[in-house]
Amino acid sequence: MSAATRPPSGTRDFLPAELIARREVMRKIEAAYEAAGFLPIETPSFERVETLMGKYGDEGDQLIFRILKRGDKLSDALDSSEPAPDAKLSEVVSANELADHALRYDLTVPFARVVAANRATLPRHFKRYQIQPVWRADRPQRGRFREFMQCDVDYIGTDSCIAEWEVLSAAGAALSSVGFQKVRCRLNDRRLLAALLRTAEVPDELQGDVLIALDKEDKIGADGVVGEWQRLGLEPGVIAKLKEITLAQSSQTNAATLDMLAEAFKDDPEGAAGVETLRELLAYDAAATTHLSLEVDLGLVRGLSYYTGPIFELTLPGFAGSVGGGGRYDGLIGMFAGTQIPAVGISLGFERLMVLLEERTRSESAPPVDVFATRLHPAADGALLALVRSLRDAGLSVHLFPNATALRRQLKQAADSGAKHALLIGEDEAAAGEVTIRDLQTGEQTRAPYADALNILTDRAQ
Amino acid sequence: MSAATRPPSGTRDFLPAELIARREVMRKIEAAYEAAGFLPIETPSFERVETLMGKYGDEGDQLIFRILKRGDKLSDALDSSEPAPDAKLSEVVSANELADHALRYDLTVPFARVVAANRATLPRHFKRYQIQPVWRADRPQRGRFREFMQCDVDYIGTDSCIAEWEVLSAAGAALSSVGFQKVRCRLNDRRLLAALLRTAEVPDELQGDVLIALDKEDKIGADGVVGEWQRLGLEPGVIAKLKEITLAQSSQTNAATLDMLAEAFKDDPEGAAGVETLRELLAYDAAATTHLSLEVDLGLVRGLSYYTGPIFELTLPGFAGSVGGGGRYDGLIGMFAGTQIPAVGISLGFERLMVLLEERTRSESAPPVDVFATRLHPAADGALLALVRSLRDAGLSVHLFPNATALRRQLKQAADSGAKHALLIGEDEAAAGEVTIRDLQTGEQTRAPYADALNILTDRAQ
Repeated sequence: MSAATRPPSGTRDFLPAELIARREVMRKIEAAYEAAGFLPIETPSFERVETLMGKYGDEGDQLIFRILKRGDKLSDALDSSEPAPDAKLSEVVSANELADHALRYDLTVPFARVVAANRATLPRHFKRYQIQPVWRADRPQRGRFREFMQCDVDYIGTDSCIAEWEVLSAAGAALSSVGFQKVRCRLNDRRLLAALLRTAEVPDELQGDVLIALDKEDKIGADGVVGEWQRLGLEPGVIAKLKEITLAQSSQTNAATLDMLAEAFKDDPEGAAGVETLRELLAYDAAATTHLSLEVDLGLVRGLSYYTGPIFELTLPGFAGSVGGGGRYDGLIGMFAGTQIPAVGISLGFERLMVLLEERTRSESAPPVDVFATRLHPAADGALLALVRSLRDAGLSVHLFPNATALRRQLKQAADSGAKHALLIGEDEAAAGEVTIRDLQTGEQTRAPYADALNILTDRAQ
Repeated sequence: MSAATRPPSGTRDFLPAELIARREVMRKIEAAYEAAGFLPIETPSFERVETLMGKYGDEGDQLIFRILKRGDKLSDALDSSEPAPDAKLSEVVSANELADHALRYDLTVPFARVVAANRATLPRHFKRYQIQPVWRADRPQRGRFREFMQCDVDYIGTDSCIAEWEVLSAAGAALSSVGFQKVRCRLNDRRLLAALLRTAEVPDELQGDVLIALDKEDKIGADGVVGEWQRLGLEPGVIAKLKEITLAQSSQTNAATLDMLAEAFKDDPEGAAGVETLRELLAYDAAATTHLSLEVDLGLVRGLSYYTGPIFELTLPGFAGSVGGGGRYDGLIGMFAGTQIPAVGISLGFERLMVLLEERTRSESAPPVDVFATRLHPAADGALLALVRSLRDAGLSVHLFPNATALRRQLKQAADSGAKHALLIGEDEAAAGEVTIRDLQTGEQTRAPYADALNILTDRAQ
């Protein structure tokens, strides 16, 4: 494949076999979301630049694809910059001024905008799902793309932890329906992390870095985390307290972990509320399973800055990185709506699921062809086309060879197509108003009037 | 809706009721395309800038959304421009250099790239369909959007006119399946237009303008077209010849029109071949209908420059503009593949179909809710959630109220949701292991053990 015909870096063309397999999985996820009472919405592929900027942290902002202004607006943007003799153009022209739109980076921020725009008509408790591509200018690597699908469910309008149970149940049912049972779901709460930083008396300016180090426990182990904390210059007493609360919990039951946290945060109302919420959620899961294996883990942080309560992350054995995640974000919609609307959501990473599913079962190639109609003689074209049409109307997959070339060549292509039968209408057959049906495996041939061919072929296709 | 929460100009948010209606139509079109033997592919939302530029004429190029380069590549692009003291920045910085990618403008050019990239593995005769959004920076107006869906079928690998019959049959079947029978399809051939210009001896430099004027016959009438030809400064003899061939054909049968054209172009081999092709196509349609009403019309031009043979345009009464169009483009794939691969395709404009369908039948609002589960007492949460789960597993649509607020408020919301039944588990019911089922229309209440509620509600939902 020459460079000029490859899709752009980090994007993919989907040919029929792969696309059909993707759609099957997508429709199962859709069906599971709908069964859980979520309704679909879709948003435009691009948003105004200012809608997206500042919502994903600095790192996120840099990964956003911006769309160049056009015509006079582009000229105005360029000409309003003031080139200085000593400065490079790149220092005086800003990317945000050259762009008016930007490609969707996730499905959550556009959804927050939609909720704000439609507050008057949406039900107070609104459960939506959305399955659409998003775009990130990440460095492409195996399993990481610049255009990829996300499958989100979100529940807005309540601070009740029933909402968490609903979105986790939808995600769990979707994962089960595509073959992943009881997926591990790490569970934490932003309020617990805030209480942790307060209780251990971590200085304000180090709080972000302390959590970033904690988030790496999966990769660098408890000792690695402590090492990073030491390099940050934390007091030994602070590190001891952090360690006591966060790193002592592994291999404990959820109940034991929550008891320990309740004790650690008994003087911190926000922390205590976080413990209570997770207890409630686990009780709901015990009453009616989310189809996930919930696991309280104070080491879960999640990068996105808009979370305010419970956070979740889904992981599968043998796959580095998560296959989904989410949490409660009670402040985000208010940035658009002016008034706070509580919300909680979870997103499944479709591409990662597809990687795992393809490893499990190699997908079939293109769908089977039932009948291959050869084209032999112009005098028979009318009968041939009418027969092809009636076979297709009866639900058979029929390939019609477009040219009246040598029969041997057509039969070779028929065999390659995987068709079970070939149709032949030559001069003889045309004169008699008949068609020859050839079994492509045995080579056996049957002649029949046009009108009977349909019955013979539909019978054999069953 | 404040400006900040509206979707960008020319784009739309789709809320559940509208999206569900769109999907139904989309799936019918998909099913019709598949029944006609076309297989799905998908391509990335953006292509390299150079893949798209120069394929759609100057006007098209200006409507392409470009994606801004990022990081060092953007700085390099800016800094490689040489600002001159007297020149504005907009005169020295080019949009094409600032951009690396561009949003898909149609589905044909990306498909041509895909065919070139996958020649080794694709079947020689390949029939593909593709239903995806495209983007054009057109001035938005009623029914014209900047992000809109196209539904394309294309057949590559043969110059046989069977390919035209196949794509027209697929489009005709798709239109029938969504309720548009025997849609008018104007039919012409680029070779006939070339023969027309030669036969009437139109000077080379006026040929484009002569066709542009001819294309407006629908809007400005035959006299208007002649007026434009006069303004171009054509000789009276040239105009007389053009008029004789093009404007005399209205209200003739297809056969009579083709006879007239065969006579007019009898000394022009390319024109004669065009007549022969259309005759063949009409014969196939007579043998097995395309489900379209084909109408030879030498006034059909179609703007896109890549067509080489038959061209088509679909129109519906009472709707200005076309609802679809296409043609043969034997040269386009060769621009990517290096070697010529013949191809013919047709595209349905999904948004225009939706406008017409919505005018015919106002779509239903959100799907109905079967059961509204109220939440009354924490002690009953376990039983409530388990019951909700089993009702949903049985296929019922169940709304679960998230908070244990006043019953009256919950019942009001239940009535608003359109649900048929409400479930109540209060302290009484919880103690007895029972649930109250309330008929929301009659107000009648039934108490039943948890285990029986499922049967009662599934029976009533049927």
